[in-house]
Amino acid sequence: MNLHAVVLCGGRGERFWPKSRRALPKQFIALFGRESLTQETSDRVRPLCPTARQLFVAPAEFEKVLRRQLGANARLVFEPLGRNTAPAIGLAAEYLKHEDPDATMLVLPADHLIEDGAAFLKAVRLGAQLAQDGMLVTFGIRPERADTGYGYVQLGKRIAGKDRLAAHRVQAFKEKPSPARARAYLAAGNYVWNSGMFIWRVDAILSAFEQFMPALYAELEAFGRTVGTRRQKAALARLYRKTPAISIDYAVMEKADNVACVRGAFDWDDVGSWLALARHIKPDHADNVANGVLVARNSSHCIVDSDAGVIAALGVKDLVIVRAGDAVLVADKDALAHIKPLLADVAALPHARRFL
Amino acid sequence: MNLHAVVLCGGRGERFWPKSRRALPKQFIALFGRESLTQETSDRVRPLCPTARQLFVAPAEFEKVLRRQLGANARLVFEPLGRNTAPAIGLAAEYLKHEDPDATMLVLPADHLIEDGAAFLKAVRLGAQLAQDGMLVTFGIRPERADTGYGYVQLGKRIAGKDRLAAHRVQAFKEKPSPARARAYLAAGNYVWNSGMFIWRVDAILSAFEQFMPALYAELEAFGRTVGTRRQKAALARLYRKTPAISIDYAVMEKADNVACVRGAFDWDDVGSWLALARHIKPDHADNVANGVLVARNSSHCIVDSDAGVIAALGVKDLVIVRAGDAVLVADKDALAHIKPLLADVAALPHARRFL
Repeated sequence: MNLHAVVLCGGRGERFWPKSRRALPKQFIALFGRESLTQETSDRVRPLCPTARQLFVAPAEFEKVLRRQLGANARLVFEPLGRNTAPAIGLAAEYLKHEDPDATMLVLPADHLIEDGAAFLKAVRLGAQLAQDGMLVTFGIRPERADTGYGYVQLGKRIAGKDRLAAHRVQAFKEKPSPARARAYLAAGNYVWNSGMFIWRVDAILSAFEQFMPALYAELEAFGRTVGTRRQKAALARLYRKTPAISIDYAVMEKADNVACVRGAFDWDDVGSWLALARHIKPDHADNVANGVLVARNSSHCIVDSDAGVIAALGVKDLVIVRAGDAVLVADKDALAHIKPLLADVAALPHARRFL
Repeated sequence: MNLHAVVLCGGRGERFWPKSRRALPKQFIALFGRESLTQETSDRVRPLCPTARQLFVAPAEFEKVLRRQLGANARLVFEPLGRNTAPAIGLAAEYLKHEDPDATMLVLPADHLIEDGAAFLKAVRLGAQLAQDGMLVTFGIRPERADTGYGYVQLGKRIAGKDRLAAHRVQAFKEKPSPARARAYLAAGNYVWNSGMFIWRVDAILSAFEQFMPALYAELEAFGRTVGTRRQKAALARLYRKTPAISIDYAVMEKADNVACVRGAFDWDDVGSWLALARHIKPDHADNVANGVLVARNSSHCIVDSDAGVIAALGVKDLVIVRAGDAVLVADKDALAHIKPLLADVAALPHARRFL
């Protein structure tokens, strides 16, 4: 089995403004240490996929930062524009098929945090076994809370593994639930978070495209025939002009019946907002967490990230305080969902580009 | 009448941290424009007291900043250490007596904000007339609110002026009141805020020292005999080693019976905390005020001061947000009184000096 990692590096990371900027979105910043989430993803999978079998799919504008973070040997594929996960995965599959028709393909978003790399690799190995039988395998995460921000997978019959690390048939994919439904999923025990990580053989995923997205499949194949030729660049542009923006879940996974889910025994966080810091940084006695120097008095449950100097908090709670370069964000935790309209206001400032 | 302005430049300005620092306290920063409060005080009084008749009493460590802000010709007197207003005023009186035994002395804290300079000068002129009769004159401010942060002066019989600009006998000085008492003062109509500005003849204030603070008076006179001699510096050090820290109100004004109060028709703010900004900067539609660039969404009643870039506020209210150099303060308005213990925490940081 030739296992290749495909790392999806799209995403604008607006929810981490001002630390993330248009030119350096979340997946390229070091939120939890010295390395970016993309670098950590690369390191984590390297025991199974050496650099030569890692493929990074990214918007073209990030070439420089990817080269800087991953080194000159990193294999990069650039999307002309973002079209969600299905086209990116199809594109990667065509590249891999060209190199190695027998390839097995592990799909990893670049911006997830997994601290127990060994447990993660065990789950990947189990998934890879199932992939050899032609299954489309998704990785599910045992839910820690009734989170309404994730999709869920309802597990069916167990088909491999046991106890903490097992694979199941998928009974159903579930959209992001209401709070009540999320609590019911948590209580039921046979629901897991849909992590957005997958493993399958290249021929299996392309067959699924052929079956469920025939128009996109035709475009992908047309592109695939140009890989390694002079026509490749024009074909890529044509592919992205024609393809809809669609997720792999919606395009394929929810429709296919050869779908399995590996329920991993590893921690996982998709680092969806600043609130993720509170889950991974040791809090002080008042449940404040900080990247950088924080002095807090009569303040609690704050999340601080600062690239310079000192942040002093006095008599405040439940705030997110971020200092990054020339911008400072002070937000109530419950207001973080409104970062997009805030950034629209910032974009309306004179000389706004320096802030975005 | 030879009118001299004595500008008192003491004070640590901790309540304006991090914009004010130990090396640049409140009276030397530009809170409301391009000039510092000290520069504005100097400019305001210049029509009556040209630079040659302005004397700045300041801690010795501020010589450089005073020269930079006031120019090489400014007349400076340095206190070896801070001992509240009575010794500073006595010291200035001895200097002026040496130059001009007939001097009239207008005492102005450096850090007050007065926007109507013309009305202020009218009040000074009225006070100066009374000073010629040997009165010790204080300036009272018509209260705009039942503020518990100021001392009050209870006015007696009117003795000069009329209508908006009048002088009264002082019936009593009142300490900072309880909220209920402050409301009663406001309702009564014959109470004014004690501004800490004064005017008197040099001989009158020194007589008052002689009467009410004889030990301090003896030290002041001993120092006064050395002015212009080689012994002056040693005598100044001796004076400050011996003098208690005591306010002019407590030392003299509350005891004397030749005290008058000019009730001015000018606006006045002692700029006691960041809340002062909200009284003098035009608010946005949600009552946020900002020095610097603020983008606020779902945020109200915030006070922002920033020396660089952009401050973005999201879903917060009643916060004070200050970015100055390498420090950011985020404080609830109601918690501002606890800035001192916060600064003690900052002082305990490694390399704390750069933040203080």
